[in-house]
Amino acid sequence: MNEHLYAVIMAGGVGSRLWPRSREATPKQFLDLLGPRTLLQATVDRLMPLVPQERILVVTGEEHVNTVREQVPDLPPENLIVEPGPRGTAPCIGLAAVALRLRDEQATMVACPADHVIADGDAFRRAVTAAAHFARQGYLVTLGIHPDSAHTGYGYIQRGDLLGHAQGQAVYRVRRFTEKPDAATARRFVDSGEYDWNGGIFIWRADVILAEMARLLPDLAAELEAVRAAWGTPSFAETLAGAWQRVPRTTIDYGVMERAERVAVTPVEMGWDDVGNWASLSRLAAGPGDGNVVHGGGRFLPVESEGVYVYAPAGRLIAAVGLHDFVIVDTPDALLICPKDQAQAVRRVVAQLKEAGLREYL
Amino acid sequence: MNEHLYAVIMAGGVGSRLWPRSREATPKQFLDLLGPRTLLQATVDRLMPLVPQERILVVTGEEHVNTVREQVPDLPPENLIVEPGPRGTAPCIGLAAVALRLRDEQATMVACPADHVIADGDAFRRAVTAAAHFARQGYLVTLGIHPDSAHTGYGYIQRGDLLGHAQGQAVYRVRRFTEKPDAATARRFVDSGEYDWNGGIFIWRADVILAEMARLLPDLAAELEAVRAAWGTPSFAETLAGAWQRVPRTTIDYGVMERAERVAVTPVEMGWDDVGNWASLSRLAAGPGDGNVVHGGGRFLPVESEGVYVYAPAGRLIAAVGLHDFVIVDTPDALLICPKDQAQAVRRVVAQLKEAGLREYL
Repeated sequence: MNEHLYAVIMAGGVGSRLWPRSREATPKQFLDLLGPRTLLQATVDRLMPLVPQERILVVTGEEHVNTVREQVPDLPPENLIVEPGPRGTAPCIGLAAVALRLRDEQATMVACPADHVIADGDAFRRAVTAAAHFARQGYLVTLGIHPDSAHTGYGYIQRGDLLGHAQGQAVYRVRRFTEKPDAATARRFVDSGEYDWNGGIFIWRADVILAEMARLLPDLAAELEAVRAAWGTPSFAETLAGAWQRVPRTTIDYGVMERAERVAVTPVEMGWDDVGNWASLSRLAAGPGDGNVVHGGGRFLPVESEGVYVYAPAGRLIAAVGLHDFVIVDTPDALLICPKDQAQAVRRVVAQLKEAGLREYL
Repeated sequence: MNEHLYAVIMAGGVGSRLWPRSREATPKQFLDLLGPRTLLQATVDRLMPLVPQERILVVTGEEHVNTVREQVPDLPPENLIVEPGPRGTAPCIGLAAVALRLRDEQATMVACPADHVIADGDAFRRAVTAAAHFARQGYLVTLGIHPDSAHTGYGYIQRGDLLGHAQGQAVYRVRRFTEKPDAATARRFVDSGEYDWNGGIFIWRADVILAEMARLLPDLAAELEAVRAAWGTPSFAETLAGAWQRVPRTTIDYGVMERAERVAVTPVEMGWDDVGNWASLSRLAAGPGDGNVVHGGGRFLPVESEGVYVYAPAGRLIAAVGLHDFVIVDTPDALLICPKDQAQAVRRVVAQLKEAGLREYL
């Protein structure tokens, strides 16, 4: 175990695609979607064999501080970093990198979202360990996910030369990094066999990512420098709030990965899923069969219905006639009924709620 | 107004086809399905211009006595007749006829279910008045509904010779009475133009229907005679309970109408509907348009959904994607999602609940 390895869990997401379970007050990462542990708790559990609790940091927003404390009660208080507002992954990671450098000049960080599902924790940890080996040499390393469809919502990574192996894991130079290609391009990428999806899990030295930000995102870097200088002083909160009003919203993918040098990827099969919508969750919940799945403690009474994913609280009975491949998500104040193949349309529901000013359901 | 005309509202139904709103404790007739008044209340309202409150009787079961008293607070106590258990319409009507004869030797009764919708109350009252004219001459008269489809769930009445007119209404002898024909027969009946549906609303003298029961249903008639003899005595309740354990379950249609003599029908267009399932209710609620209908005070947020009937209580939000011609019925403990063209399948849901012993949802 590497004593300079730290984990940074990004728990600031505000996803709306699992509405009505995910709400502004309880986004996806705080939900027990697939078992007794929430996605945040499962992310901590997955890291623990690799990184002890005292080196796991969580970055989240003001409004979620209490939820994080409840769900990760053993998190050291100084390991909870509060962003004044969501500005995309680049400022979030930059802020964590500043915190880590102040603590440990040699810090290597694994940055991972709090709201992904990874079935094979051992494979994940093996890949992170291998990635950390090359990160120490100055590489920005990302975990590559084998693309099982020509999805247009992900970043695609073209593998270049083999850098080497660690932990039995191959690590490659990245030739090209393409964010959200069009359908034809995605198809070509997948068919070529040379591409992996960017799983959004990054491993790098804190000093290296900050240096890349200074080169590629100088405005962000300047704000981060001001925050670093104020760290631990009475004016810290005010400085951070001011900086966060100015920093532009940037993802680490667009802002850094596409343009950085010394970028590497280590492909890993670990049962990764970003649970992007109810159809994904339903797939994860169903396993190999294709029957109906009922979560939440409620009852489901299907008549000529199959492939239905139901979430319903204990005591509720849901009877469906003639539904095929639908999701039914029932919460105390709101209910969603949606075909699995239109699961993306849930965003439109949420957009309409916003337009109609129905904030109580958001 | 005929001072010997009485109304008997049959409010003992236990229909399950409007589950989950209709339950054993609150069957259809006690629900406000189409406005502020329940079907029972609307039935009373419809009769009031024709028959004063003191000559309106309600027959129901023990378990619904309080509900009837709440919903019809002005009902004279002696006008509430309590059946010990449901035995079909023949015993129910026989019991009411016994009660009426004891009160008025010349009583003519209009017997009508509490759970039908009739849009045109004036047409209804005109038809009943005309029917009562012929009933006084000894006819068993039924209101004939123009068949708008070859429905196989109704009784069909073939019109015979014209008996005459009253109130501008034609009244015909009945040539034949056929209960629930098969599909081909129903089609033939409708195409011939000689048939009406039996709307389940009957007008006759109490003495005439009792005489027909004595002839056609002697077992029932014997029990009714014992009940009559005990009426107003301390042993009445016991006598009635005993009789009702013995009387066979019989409908007035099978038991009397198909075999009686001097049966007449008066066809009437009055916007009749027996609200047999959620698709019927949805049709009645939608009017001429074909958009979505929302009842119950809740909100509906449709995305690419149309022809959806929604019932949801105030405060609930129901979002549906890609639903066409469905009903969604949401109650505090149970939810139904069903295509309109499979609305009959709700019976299967209720049957499965019984089988599974889930009595709390019945």
